[in-house]
Amino acid sequence: MVNEIPKQSGTAFKLKKGEKLRVIDPLGQQVSDLVLFNAQDIREKISSGKTLDFEETIFITKGHYLWSNRSNKMMEITEDTNGRNDFLLAPCSPETFSIMYGHKGYHPSCFENLYTHLAPFKIQPDDIPTAFNIFMNVQVASNGQLSVDPPTSKAGDYIEFIALMDVIVGLTACSAEDSNGGSFKPIQYEIRATH
Amino acid sequence: MVNEIPKQSGTAFKLKKGEKLRVIDPLGQQVSDLVLFNAQDIREKISSGKTLDFEETIFITKGHYLWSNRSNKMMEITEDTNGRNDFLLAPCSPETFSIMYGHKGYHPSCFENLYTHLAPFKIQPDDIPTAFNIFMNVQVASNGQLSVDPPTSKAGDYIEFIALMDVIVGLTACSAEDSNGGSFKPIQYEIRATH
Repeated sequence: MVNEIPKQSGTAFKLKKGEKLRVIDPLGQQVSDLVLFNAQDIREKISSGKTLDFEETIFITKGHYLWSNRSNKMMEITEDTNGRNDFLLAPCSPETFSIMYGHKGYHPSCFENLYTHLAPFKIQPDDIPTAFNIFMNVQVASNGQLSVDPPTSKAGDYIEFIALMDVIVGLTACSAEDSNGGSFKPIQYEIRATH
Repeated sequence: MVNEIPKQSGTAFKLKKGEKLRVIDPLGQQVSDLVLFNAQDIREKISSGKTLDFEETIFITKGHYLWSNRSNKMMEITEDTNGRNDFLLAPCSPETFSIMYGHKGYHPSCFENLYTHLAPFKIQPDDIPTAFNIFMNVQVASNGQLSVDPPTSKAGDYIEFIALMDVIVGLTACSAEDSNGGSFKPIQYEIRATH
């Protein structure tokens, strides 16, 4: 069954070891932030620093693992039809919009959408780590400068993960104009047991 | 007063808002991992994802800020005579040596040296974030591949920070062969009040 995350919102759910998660960009050029927690002990969670270290690349895609702060493999990426994701930048937050873009007033954000949906699992805002930013197209210039370009994902592109431990997943349809070329779109996901 | 952190070890201390911290590479080509916690509430801590996001570069140096997971500025870098630091990779840990390098048996690590010295501040191993890796020379190839090269720091090079809130600092003399060109050396640091 394909589930839909409406634009600028999020969800959270459990995934058992061995289950597969497919995250789909139904319309193209949309970003989805993913965070992971060990379902048995939420103090173990996805770590950008550990993942970049063990995988020895900033471009995490098919064949790579998502590692935890305890140096365990949480998920493997088994498919990635787009092939470009980001694991450098924090989820967009109210401060992203107020400090970086001078936005006044309320703005939805992945950070809020993550902690709101993860609250039933006793996960608090301070616990939200740097997310794995699916489909996010961050370019690194030779002088180190970072720029956020529109995603290269086309309608129907997807990435698939297999859980290597029981995990709690937080997942969004990104709220940032910058990440998706100024358009807000839904994200779809599908959970499948492996046989 | 200049303090010395012996090779392959670490320390932790409080720094008040407005105080300056200078971290010195006395012999050259040595790395020092730095982590920060809000001294009033240790759930606020240094964040690589927030820092890379707000500073819009992977090369964090003089004039940049170290940001927290709550989107607050924790420190400003006021001097940096070497100019190359890393904020991508996790502190070296026992698993760095066993998984990446096939090392058998005990190996000192920045991770252990950080959590051991931060324990008196009620900071636990799971709380250790991706460190700001002072003097660490990580190269990013155009295809995203990461490599750890010997530091470019020469004897006497230093970086200086000013605290923008009361912080608890964890600081190491790095234990990884890979980070310092195969030699283990001390790190020095100096704390000064500003007038």
